[in-house]
Amino acid sequence: MGIHTYFQSLNDLERIIRCPGRFKYEEHSVSAHSWKVVQYAKTLADIEESNGVTVDWKKLYEVTSSHDYGEIFIGDIKTPVKHYSLELRAMLQKVEEGMVSHFIDEHIPEEFKPIFRRQLREGKDDSVEGLILEVADKMDQVYEAFTELQRGNTEKEFIVMYRSALIKIKGINLHCVNYFLQNILPDMVSEGSRSSIDIAKITNEALAS
Amino acid sequence: MGIHTYFQSLNDLERIIRCPGRFKYEEHSVSAHSWKVVQYAKTLADIEESNGVTVDWKKLYEVTSSHDYGEIFIGDIKTPVKHYSLELRAMLQKVEEGMVSHFIDEHIPEEFKPIFRRQLREGKDDSVEGLILEVADKMDQVYEAFTELQRGNTEKEFIVMYRSALIKIKGINLHCVNYFLQNILPDMVSEGSRSSIDIAKITNEALAS
Amino acid sequence: MGIHTYFQSLNDLERIIRCPGRFKYEEHSVSAHSWKVVQYAKTLADIEESNGVTVDWKKLYEVTSSHDYGEIFIGDIKTPVKHYSLELRAMLQKVEEGMVSHFIDEHIPEEFKPIFRRQLREGKDDSVEGLILEVADKMDQVYEAFTELQRGNTEKEFIVMYRSALIKIKGINLHCVNYFLQNILPDMVSEGSRSSIDIAKITNEALAS
Amino acid sequence: MGIHTYFQSLNDLERIIRCPGRFKYEEHSVSAHSWKVVQYAKTLADIEESNGVTVDWKKLYEVTSSHDYGEIFIGDIKTPVKHYSLELRAMLQKVEEGMVSHFIDEHIPEEFKPIFRRQLREGKDDSVEGLILEVADKMDQVYEAFTELQRGNTEKEFIVMYRSALIKIKGINLHCVNYFLQNILPDMVSEGSRSSIDIAKITNEALAS
Amino acid sequence: MGIHTYFQSLNDLERIIRCPGRFKYEEHSVSAHSWKVVQYAKTLADIEESNGVTVDWKKLYEVTSSHDYGEIFIGDIKTPVKHYSLELRAMLQKVEEGMVSHFIDEHIPEEFKPIFRRQLREGKDDSVEGLILEVADKMDQVYEAFTELQRGNTEKEFIVMYRSALIKIKGINLHCVNYFLQNILPDMVSEGSRSSIDIAKITNEALAS
Amino acid sequence: MGIHTYFQSLNDLERIIRCPGRFKYEEHSVSAHSWKVVQYAKTLADIEESNGVTVDWKKLYEVTSSHDYGEIFIGDIKTPVKHYSLELRAMLQKVEEGMVSHFIDEHIPEEFKPIFRRQLREGKDDSVEGLILEVADKMDQVYEAFTELQRGNTEKEFIVMYRSALIKIKGINLHCVNYFLQNILPDMVSEGSRSSIDIAKITNEALAS
Repeated sequence: MGIHTYFQSLNDLERIIRCPGRFKYEEHSVSAHSWKVVQYAKTLADIEESNGVTVDWKKLYEVTSSHDYGEIFIGDIKTPVKHYSLELRAMLQKVEEGMVSHFIDEHIPEEFKPIFRRQLREGKDDSVEGLILEVADKMDQVYEAFTELQRGNTEKEFIVMYRSALIKIKGINLHCVNYFLQNILPDMVSEGSRSSIDIAKITNEALAS
Repeated sequence: MGIHTYFQSLNDLERIIRCPGRFKYEEHSVSAHSWKVVQYAKTLADIEESNGVTVDWKKLYEVTSSHDYGEIFIGDIKTPVKHYSLELRAMLQKVEEGMVSHFIDEHIPEEFKPIFRRQLREGKDDSVEGLILEVADKMDQVYEAFTELQRGNTEKEFIVMYRSALIKIKGINLHCVNYFLQNILPDMVSEGSRSSIDIAKITNEALAS
Repeated sequence: MGIHTYFQSLNDLERIIRCPGRFKYEEHSVSAHSWKVVQYAKTLADIEESNGVTVDWKKLYEVTSSHDYGEIFIGDIKTPVKHYSLELRAMLQKVEEGMVSHFIDEHIPEEFKPIFRRQLREGKDDSVEGLILEVADKMDQVYEAFTELQRGNTEKEFIVMYRSALIKIKGINLHCVNYFLQNILPDMVSEGSRSSIDIAKITNEALAS
Repeated sequence: MGIHTYFQSLNDLERIIRCPGRFKYEEHSVSAHSWKVVQYAKTLADIEESNGVTVDWKKLYEVTSSHDYGEIFIGDIKTPVKHYSLELRAMLQKVEEGMVSHFIDEHIPEEFKPIFRRQLREGKDDSVEGLILEVADKMDQVYEAFTELQRGNTEKEFIVMYRSALIKIKGINLHCVNYFLQNILPDMVSEGSRSSIDIAKITNEALAS
Repeated sequence: MGIHTYFQSLNDLERIIRCPGRFKYEEHSVSAHSWKVVQYAKTLADIEESNGVTVDWKKLYEVTSSHDYGEIFIGDIKTPVKHYSLELRAMLQKVEEGMVSHFIDEHIPEEFKPIFRRQLREGKDDSVEGLILEVADKMDQVYEAFTELQRGNTEKEFIVMYRSALIKIKGINLHCVNYFLQNILPDMVSEGSRSSIDIAKITNEALAS
Repeated sequence: MGIHTYFQSLNDLERIIRCPGRFKYEEHSVSAHSWKVVQYAKTLADIEESNGVTVDWKKLYEVTSSHDYGEIFIGDIKTPVKHYSLELRAMLQKVEEGMVSHFIDEHIPEEFKPIFRRQLREGKDDSVEGLILEVADKMDQVYEAFTELQRGNTEKEFIVMYRSALIKIKGINLHCVNYFLQNILPDMVSEGSRSSIDIAKITNEALAS
């Protein structure tokens, strides 16, 4: 009861692992994912500003930092489930919102209730900040899938994740998307094509040096 | 494509951790849980038989071994979500059944389809075998929660799990439920009351021996 | 003392890791292995039945679900040790049986003793059910080794495991062995030959879509 | 070369574990810690605003999200080392700054260099935002230590961590510090005094219900 | 083939976990155990020397550092198995020696064979060095069990481990055993009796300071 | 207070992971590393002796077994930090020595203080034993990096580790260095060039056997 309950609940997201069930070389918690989204979004917003777009940093702060808080209540439901039908997706979102709302009613002191209601709602709207959040969220999906593919993971789910996130990103009309496609993605792809390491060659060079 | 796809998919259940998000001293995979349910059910069925009840062992085999296979597709959705509303629960069950059905259509060879449809359906019906499955499934919930409480875990969720599973079990009308309540549960409770270990005393006894 | 002790002991098999000491990309507990053996055996028995063979499902249930219970007492002894000499192997089996028998004497209530003695004995006899168990057990060895080789594990032990399990399986005279060799194994091998993923190509396709 | 190098480097902080060497019931990565600091700081800033203080949200975003980025280069050096001497502390900070600066020179494109230099510098200055960061950072130290003490961890280092963080917080002159001391800390302490769970009582209540 | 094979095999002992199957708060690999035995033995030998006993440090080095190398071949067989019968114990030791001998024959270059045969034999003889090894080995068993009991582990196996190791140690006639019993063990026991931490008290003291 | 505090502190090194932050297929604790250094050094010293060099085994024991004990106090500081400047390196070494010295003053009984001061000082001097320690320490760096490269890890840090350790080793003037370069390293390199496994071929051979 009180802000303590909320602060303490944050800890649970360290124990919710993304993409449950699939073999992966690296596991990522929802906390770690959330922090990377905050970081990407900051640079994406810098790119927008440098192109003359006005960014509401308070709103950006709120939507990026809390965007997966609801997973404390419903867990990281597998993507195919979320996309099974529009009806199910709408209902799951309604349940998540209901549980967040119930949590606020029960635990958040009266004077903070309006703030928490604003912060913990779904942030992916059509504002610049909402779109930046969407790009940053999908960008982490790209990075997570890329790292697995690069290490030799042959699970098809990671190819699907990588592709669908890229397609989603390129459909968003922001300056930072152009920057990502023209400057960041090519570096990633060229790194992914790096051939494996020739141990004999490195050894010989070291011994000859 | 083919039984290989099905056999290989079983592996994924080792990576789905039950009760995601909560702090726990021991993690349990869905595979390990499933095996324990198979084991409990065997003894529960032995108790029924010794009380003159006829058990269909083939059916029992099928319903217990596959009862959580559907979690490969939807993951271990948090209990509060499942119980949020009857409507959502029904829809999630429909989705799980739809995904299992889709998997059978796509991967299982024609001659096995009827067998897999029967085996991978929800097994908790009102038959003796369905009820034994329900008891065995809840019994593992009792054991998982008990072990955490015994080790000092103070998360309320484990008290709720323990209580609700016990209440569910005692409402089922089977000989094995009586046996559980009269012979197994008292041993468990008495073990849970064991006071902590007196290191000084053990040390002195060892040195004096 | 009582069935509680037996039920609680099942938990220990989640903490015994198969193939100890060797580097592996995925660890498998004896519990998870046991559950997969139960699942494979079910489909193998379905294949026998569809070929007109009569299966005793109660016996199959008993032998598959408990086949590695004895490892609670002796652990997962490394395969080369088990095969070091016929004399040692016989003695280890005698010790395991002795410990299981001692456990039953001490913890299992009188009325269950005959049942547990039957269930916890070695199940790999020459009956159809015993042979199905042998095939299912070796099949999991094939899958465990295959997955490691597929991910690039170069430990020779996994090649040995894979080969010796295949050789063992093909020597067993069951309809389901034919089905495995003709329908399941070719799918596995063809999957194992899948070349690695071309990240640049996937990226270009996604951007062009 | 480029923002890609920076984005990818964020992943490394998931593998740097705080408080290395000490036994703990829960491990926390620097990423997860960083995300919680971002979350606490948001609520702390809300409290300041509700008391009429002006918060620069862009600055707050920058200082909280990046405050431990430098640990990618130097790791989570043990606290006693950091506090060994003012001279060493100054030198370690100089090294961290030098490495961050070198990273920016080498990897960040020209047009972003001023932005990254501002974002990746030490953020704990005397501004409201710098002080909020200090409180949020110490608050996570309080929560990490509290959780260990509550679970029965008797390592003295966690008592030291808990105490020193509390003392640091109470010395900072902000409205949110008063709120923490009067509203959050008492809830935490009262939870920490919760006696252990009486399994027999819960069992009896469940059976009687 | 060659010393490389031997050096590389050392790595496997990091993946053999002691006391497999039992719940424990901390896992210990055979490597970590071996290193602690080397460390304890050094101080125990210092105590012998300070009492005028001559220590052969080369022999001590050889017997302590390699004492569990044979577990690479047979794993950490559960203690009750090892002690099941004198006959089995003798046979397991013979197998281990046979496998070590076979490894030396196959992989160790001719000129090193006598050295490896001496180093990799069982070191627990009646010499001062052999007895110090026995004390150091049992002392680590005491520490491992003590730490579990202190954290609240109620598994009976750890009480048995703690007791039997103490009894074994006190039966060995060395100066360092007296030192252990009179100076080290009392400190351990008194630490084990430390009552749990009063969070409210620490909080109040910190706020008042 | 007393040797107990020292013995118990050894446990902490099992929880300090080498090369923090970098992705790796296998983690190595400082304890496991220390044990491998002890083992390598033993064989390296055997090689020196077989070339007529006199080895002080007591000194070798002391310097190899304790060479990373100081990391209990300062952790495994990232290599680039250690090498950032000669000034920082000297200061970090001074701090480590100060903390070790403080630990001895506070916890080690009077009669052991001179022994511990000798044992816990930096052992890498110009004596044969000091040089053997240096070779053994770098050899483990070679093995750790080699294993990662062999498994396909493309992190540049492991190439750097591998190269710099090799270069350091070849600059040391010992008989065992020649042996390493001529007999051990070639085996390692040839193993590292092993091509991946052809699953189809192994399968066919097994089925034809």
